[in-house]
Amino acid sequence: MDLIKIKKALISVSDKKNLDKILKTLQVYNVEILSTGGTFKYIKDLGYQCTEVSDYTKSQEILDGRVKTLHPKIHGGLLAKADNKEHINQISKENIDLINLLIVNLYPFEKKLLENADEETLVENIDIGGPSMLRSAAKNFKFTTVISDPEQYDECINELTKNQGSTSLNFRKKMSTNAFLETAYYDSIISNWMNKEQNKFPKKITISGSIQNELRYGENPHQQATIYNVNYKKDLLSGIEQLQGKELSYNNYLDMYAAISISKYLDNAKKTCVIVKHNNPCGCAASNNLSNAYKLALNADPISAFGGVVCFNDEIDKKLAEKLSDTFYEIIISNKFTSDALDVFRKKKNLRLIITKHHMGEKLTYNIIGEKILIQDKDIKELENKDLKVVTKIKPTKKQIKDLKFAFNICRFVKSNAIVIVKNNQSLGIGAGQTNRLASSKIACQNAKLFFKNNVKNSVAASDAFFPFADGLKELVKLGVKSIIQPGGSIKDNEVIKAADKAKISMIFTGIRNFKH
Amino acid sequence: MDLIKIKKALISVSDKKNLDKILKTLQVYNVEILSTGGTFKYIKDLGYQCTEVSDYTKSQEILDGRVKTLHPKIHGGLLAKADNKEHINQISKENIDLINLLIVNLYPFEKKLLENADEETLVENIDIGGPSMLRSAAKNFKFTTVISDPEQYDECINELTKNQGSTSLNFRKKMSTNAFLETAYYDSIISNWMNKEQNKFPKKITISGSIQNELRYGENPHQQATIYNVNYKKDLLSGIEQLQGKELSYNNYLDMYAAISISKYLDNAKKTCVIVKHNNPCGCAASNNLSNAYKLALNADPISAFGGVVCFNDEIDKKLAEKLSDTFYEIIISNKFTSDALDVFRKKKNLRLIITKHHMGEKLTYNIIGEKILIQDKDIKELENKDLKVVTKIKPTKKQIKDLKFAFNICRFVKSNAIVIVKNNQSLGIGAGQTNRLASSKIACQNAKLFFKNNVKNSVAASDAFFPFADGLKELVKLGVKSIIQPGGSIKDNEVIKAADKAKISMIFTGIRNFKH
Repeated sequence: MDLIKIKKALISVSDKKNLDKILKTLQVYNVEILSTGGTFKYIKDLGYQCTEVSDYTKSQEILDGRVKTLHPKIHGGLLAKADNKEHINQISKENIDLINLLIVNLYPFEKKLLENADEETLVENIDIGGPSMLRSAAKNFKFTTVISDPEQYDECINELTKNQGSTSLNFRKKMSTNAFLETAYYDSIISNWMNKEQNKFPKKITISGSIQNELRYGENPHQQATIYNVNYKKDLLSGIEQLQGKELSYNNYLDMYAAISISKYLDNAKKTCVIVKHNNPCGCAASNNLSNAYKLALNADPISAFGGVVCFNDEIDKKLAEKLSDTFYEIIISNKFTSDALDVFRKKKNLRLIITKHHMGEKLTYNIIGEKILIQDKDIKELENKDLKVVTKIKPTKKQIKDLKFAFNICRFVKSNAIVIVKNNQSLGIGAGQTNRLASSKIACQNAKLFFKNNVKNSVAASDAFFPFADGLKELVKLGVKSIIQPGGSIKDNEVIKAADKAKISMIFTGIRNFKH
Repeated sequence: MDLIKIKKALISVSDKKNLDKILKTLQVYNVEILSTGGTFKYIKDLGYQCTEVSDYTKSQEILDGRVKTLHPKIHGGLLAKADNKEHINQISKENIDLINLLIVNLYPFEKKLLENADEETLVENIDIGGPSMLRSAAKNFKFTTVISDPEQYDECINELTKNQGSTSLNFRKKMSTNAFLETAYYDSIISNWMNKEQNKFPKKITISGSIQNELRYGENPHQQATIYNVNYKKDLLSGIEQLQGKELSYNNYLDMYAAISISKYLDNAKKTCVIVKHNNPCGCAASNNLSNAYKLALNADPISAFGGVVCFNDEIDKKLAEKLSDTFYEIIISNKFTSDALDVFRKKKNLRLIITKHHMGEKLTYNIIGEKILIQDKDIKELENKDLKVVTKIKPTKKQIKDLKFAFNICRFVKSNAIVIVKNNQSLGIGAGQTNRLASSKIACQNAKLFFKNNVKNSVAASDAFFPFADGLKELVKLGVKSIIQPGGSIKDNEVIKAADKAKISMIFTGIRNFKH
């Protein structure tokens, strides 16, 4: 068991929560206590005996508390190997006692950051002495016990009680791990804050998350999963609030993120509705009326919509809530619900309702595959009028250009290869995730034909990358597509342009590819 | 500019590289130098003046060097605010000099970890004094300059030269950021090592990467991108080596990872070939002969294979290399190439050739969406015989069971919804990424019909999740599929089983869903 008796403890905590509980146990085992500044006063006020660190080190606290524990008498006591004769001789010569237990928690840097504190306050909240002690004690886990979080007190009390005032090596090692998880997290938050306006791709990076909650399971039931928050980032899911319904699942988070992403890019001068299934949109529409936007998005592919995630950009009223209740959905997302609407939804108690808050956009994406992290700019380049280069004899009409932009902004969020057919602010067919472009074109056309019969004439289409041959374009022409938007850049562009001219349709090259994998 | 004159520097470096360069500059500006142990000796040997830290602190180095700089005279000098009268009074009373420049690099914990050093060695290589000083200096960036990496020496020399021995606030802040990036990274490596056998989902996590290289661009040309290595992990791309060809792109990495993942799961008693395009497989086959496996995988969808990533599990010889040269591929991956084969490939100098090394599997996946990190077990549950529950009147034959397993193991790597049709160890059709299961079934069937005409009879199929209705199954039956493997679990399972019985085919429920988004 490698039990080590706790004789002397150093306590220096920013968060005083539950300190009395552990003090009581330490008293039972006659543990001598050293402490600093505020913690010292707090312990004395609770009626326990305690020595101030400066009395022990004979060195005054200086620089407004910046330097108090950075002293050989403290670190020697934390770092000495208790089974090493030379170490023991050295510390006794220097009048250093072994410190067997360290209880420290750090200045609340992250809390201040989330409170939007100014730079000076944040810098003052970078703890120096605390992490140094935590690291010394954690390194010396063979002999020293380190407690870095008030939530570990109960476990520590149990350990001490079980072993009559001693701790086991297993316990010390576990607590040492926790201490390093804490210091790594702490400096990751600081470094990401300091780096936020500097180097986009620094030599070394850390991404840090604090646990939000365990999930029922991951993508599939046999996979355990947990969700973490990266607190120094603000993105599309920041500040969302769940009003009712079952717990959010792993796949729900993916679909919500996809739905809100698309929603942000659609024409927000209008009311919009986006329906997502398996991380791909299956219906998107914009209208002057939210209820109508929903109807159009649903009709775009009523089969796929079943069990989907529906995202709106405006208030959901009672009537719309009733319509939504006719179909089984996983999640309804909006920025506002009338109280009548909430009453309607309350009857479907499993249905998840999500309110989105104002969200800033994170500028980078992180893709982790095994031991590689791929970091890149988010694909957030806006399509501007100057990007639109007409390459055909026929020019698109103003109305077509509107639909082309609408299709482009859906298409960038569809898994590659992607083809999106649109007419009057409504998606008619979305060809997703195919290993060749012709297949995506066919899927989009089949969907359009299935649900829109002859109403597909005069539609437009977007392609996320160039057509390598004219075949995909010809499929779209056959359906009734009259204008196409795509990046261009194929060695067969001329052949594709010729086919468009021959079919008397217009085509725009943007130079902007939108692969998404 | 907030220039601060460098009068006193503390140097304590584990890596002595290029130290002479910066010492020369410090001499030009008459900077006094403090140093510790090995660094002190190194500086003296180079002929520069230098004071040993223990002479300055009047405190002996103890505990085999574990405690030498953890002293108020050092940290007071790094942390004092030079424009704060009280601070200046306090340090002068304690005979503490301001230390304006800190040059530190840390014990090579990560290097030792990658060398598979034992626990004791690793613990000894957890630097305590170094990170403490780096953090003190970095916190006090308004006054103190911190250099945490030999690669910063040139920039520091330029800064000192430009400002005649002073540094600017901008420079100090930048170097402070680098120091915190370093300490965060350092502790992240330590904590992930310590935690590796403990808590799967700790309260706080950090994921750390060191830069591998900038990429030409990200998923698309308008997105800047960089790839990092998570050095404490070993996974499928660990130790790969590029033998020739263009630089690997962002999308190449994704496709390689997908191709090697599938390859690992196919029947490795046989020779296998996997062709991936846009992160989905388009052709997979196993055979007793590698060349034949390639032929079968290519024939599974020769249109999509163009521009794909091809992964083999055995040695590529000259004849196969010649066949592969007939088609345009992005990457050829194998664990071995004959030298004849390499000669053939050398003629296609843009073609990327990748050798895979032995790779262990990382057990978790990390999915970052905006400010959320979703962590889950990898979907690596092996399909065992006990998972196979026949639910139909007809039982699958032994040969069908082999094909069903083959289909299952491809299907888990296809984006959802996924349907994979297989016959004789060859994929005939892969329906990927659709928002409803019927659509995926149709795509798989269309592919099979297109490329295999009447050879589709007696094939089998896998579905990554249950059939919500019998319609998808009926499509497969119409094609000629005679046995199906799927998890089951739909409320309409009975209807689906009835349809299978009616069509006189066999069906297996596994209870294992394999969504992949």
